[in-house]
Amino acid sequence: MPDLSCLSPAELEGQLHQVQKHYDHYVAMGLDLNMARGKPCPDQLDLSREMLNLPLGELLGSEEFSYDWANYGMGLGLPEARRLMASILDADPKTTLVGGCASLNLMYDTLAYCWMFGTQGHKPWCQLDTVKWICLTPGYDRHFAMLEAFGIQMISVPLLADGPDMDAVENLVSEDVSIKGIWCVPYYSNPSGTCYSLDAAQRLATMPCAAEDFRIFWDNAYAVHHLYAEDEVTPCPNILDLCEKAGNPNRAYVFSSTSKISFAQAGISALATSKDNFDEITKHQAVQTIGFDKINQLRHVLFFKNKEGIDRHMRRHAEILRPKFELVIQKLEAGLSDQSTYGPLGSWTRPSGGYFIHFESLPGCAQRIVELAKQAGVVLTQAGATHPYGRDPRDSAIRIAPSYPSCADLEQAMDVFICCVRYASLEQEYLRRKVAKDTQA
Amino acid sequence: MPDLSCLSPAELEGQLHQVQKHYDHYVAMGLDLNMARGKPCPDQLDLSREMLNLPLGELLGSEEFSYDWANYGMGLGLPEARRLMASILDADPKTTLVGGCASLNLMYDTLAYCWMFGTQGHKPWCQLDTVKWICLTPGYDRHFAMLEAFGIQMISVPLLADGPDMDAVENLVSEDVSIKGIWCVPYYSNPSGTCYSLDAAQRLATMPCAAEDFRIFWDNAYAVHHLYAEDEVTPCPNILDLCEKAGNPNRAYVFSSTSKISFAQAGISALATSKDNFDEITKHQAVQTIGFDKINQLRHVLFFKNKEGIDRHMRRHAEILRPKFELVIQKLEAGLSDQSTYGPLGSWTRPSGGYFIHFESLPGCAQRIVELAKQAGVVLTQAGATHPYGRDPRDSAIRIAPSYPSCADLEQAMDVFICCVRYASLEQEYLRRKVAKDTQA
Repeated sequence: MPDLSCLSPAELEGQLHQVQKHYDHYVAMGLDLNMARGKPCPDQLDLSREMLNLPLGELLGSEEFSYDWANYGMGLGLPEARRLMASILDADPKTTLVGGCASLNLMYDTLAYCWMFGTQGHKPWCQLDTVKWICLTPGYDRHFAMLEAFGIQMISVPLLADGPDMDAVENLVSEDVSIKGIWCVPYYSNPSGTCYSLDAAQRLATMPCAAEDFRIFWDNAYAVHHLYAEDEVTPCPNILDLCEKAGNPNRAYVFSSTSKISFAQAGISALATSKDNFDEITKHQAVQTIGFDKINQLRHVLFFKNKEGIDRHMRRHAEILRPKFELVIQKLEAGLSDQSTYGPLGSWTRPSGGYFIHFESLPGCAQRIVELAKQAGVVLTQAGATHPYGRDPRDSAIRIAPSYPSCADLEQAMDVFICCVRYASLEQEYLRRKVAKDTQA
Repeated sequence: MPDLSCLSPAELEGQLHQVQKHYDHYVAMGLDLNMARGKPCPDQLDLSREMLNLPLGELLGSEEFSYDWANYGMGLGLPEARRLMASILDADPKTTLVGGCASLNLMYDTLAYCWMFGTQGHKPWCQLDTVKWICLTPGYDRHFAMLEAFGIQMISVPLLADGPDMDAVENLVSEDVSIKGIWCVPYYSNPSGTCYSLDAAQRLATMPCAAEDFRIFWDNAYAVHHLYAEDEVTPCPNILDLCEKAGNPNRAYVFSSTSKISFAQAGISALATSKDNFDEITKHQAVQTIGFDKINQLRHVLFFKNKEGIDRHMRRHAEILRPKFELVIQKLEAGLSDQSTYGPLGSWTRPSGGYFIHFESLPGCAQRIVELAKQAGVVLTQAGATHPYGRDPRDSAIRIAPSYPSCADLEQAMDVFICCVRYASLEQEYLRRKVAKDTQA
């Protein structure tokens, strides 16, 4: 396959000059576009508008609804809300609790409980000299930030096309007792869109772990976030069932939320786990808080009714998101995949769900691309954010979040992005040759 | 003053027999009444009914309101909500954040941050051999439960009529470096209804502490919960200002919520503190969560508008609660204060705000009273709950929560309660004499 090294010096300088002119033109436009975070767009929020118009006051004290949902009590959530969230996760409502608006908060608190108090009789993690964690890369920056805050050592393991590099994971956890957990986004993974195979999930559930209190933090954030209807038939592996069957019933905590179903930062979250873990967590939680907002839970129950209601709603989200994802892919293919004079300047995922497209530039270019884009008014997720400590050893990973901008803005943002990728790639080749020449001289 | 020892043996047996008959009559009624928790009654919830009918969907995307309140962002809360909550606490909105529905959750998290990470450069409390805490008694059981969960040693100090026994507090904190904090409910304290004097607050702010990272957890849960309009003019001492002026700016964390203003478990909470503490806490919080429900914050802002709106609303709460408090006091006075043949069988507070009346039985009777009441269908807060580890050394403290039952139910519940107090008191005197006699024989 051809690459930039095939360009003659004159060709390279010519191309670089041309792309610089192109780039300067974008800078002069003073754009203000954002593809940084997986943020729903206004059209998506409109889908749940009627949830906010439900006159819940009319139900207060009615025969069917009483006053209980607007008063203290039911700390684990409204039974109907627990059923609804359990249905998304294919979990047992009896061991599913409903939390506040952020599942991240449930993850943090679950980790903090292990840290401060230990789990299932094991030593609190804060009392150990070293705690390590497996971080699949590319992965979710907020997961990594949490571990960094706790001083937990992060070990990078590649996320492959159908899940974690399980050979690597198995080797690590079988030997190192200080490895206490792994982050997994098993379905339409952030940022690659990867869906774990049943085989990968099975190996996670069954693998021997040196640490008896090894935990899988299964962040099923995109459980129902299909872009294509036909994908709904391939559900996420049920890690709780697999762990139970493997004789490791307490190995997994499962999380989800409606942040990208109803309203970002105003949805409801859920945690599902084994009976023993559930009892342990709810015991801690009963000390930590009075409970979570059941009025908002009722709002969700009345609006969505059941899993079918959520699936219907998600198809409307998909109608908004699909064209954006397709636009990004199309732009990348047209702009970067097969230049006439040199090979592709990167690779990218083609997810069928979730919120992100993962782009890999030529090694050493990602930071420069993000910096160039920023100067041209297009904000991307920070380069390296997809890796522990914000350090991508290849400096090539860039997360693209197409949900928030309008299609028109997205088109423009992608044109800028592609220009920046070309610029950074050509510039790097140019500088590489210059250094080589200077060294020779 | 006369007491039970003045009764002749025949009088005592006669009275005991009579009260037993009376009690049996209540048991036979199969009552189901609850004075256990500070839970708003349906009439109180009705006051905020219209908040739930606000058609917020109509505002989504409008020129004035945009979409931002229904999407990610503003992790510290809607600016308008921060202003509203700061106005309740007489704090600076810039160092006030708005949390989820439970201020208890903010307290726990603030304690957990100190525990796991330390505060202002000091050692994490989890790394210390011993951490101790001053617990004013009678106090709030959930505060104590939190300390117990962390394994923090609780030191009881009496709460006097105008605040903590400051001589005792000053002595303790000046000498013991392992004492890291104190719980305070400074206004209409749970359960005694005590309001701290300015002098007590000033001493808390200025007292020399052996632990540089000593912290006041100032749970101002009842900041606007007056029963009598004239009390609104005597506000709670501003502990943040006092600490600042005393040169101990980081000493206090202030908490509150609208749990007993709007909806229990579905209101909004707030934390106010110094600039340095605020920066530290919000740094941790940005890792712990995405943020809290701004839609519910907007609902509160639109419904209450400002401090005046809240005060107006609280006067309506007072109209519902005042008769209940007065009924309890009146029943206690009529039933227990001055029997014809023996002196008072307990003492009680006469709070002018908050949610509780604190009752002190004759020593050694509280557990028996609560047990008797339960058997007669009246649930009270567990005896001892007002003390660390649930252990009241005098076995005399009982918290009465008059808010939830209707006046008719409350009247009946108080009749039962008074009967149980008489029963337990006479029974104890009877048993005491019997033991004395048996020992003599």
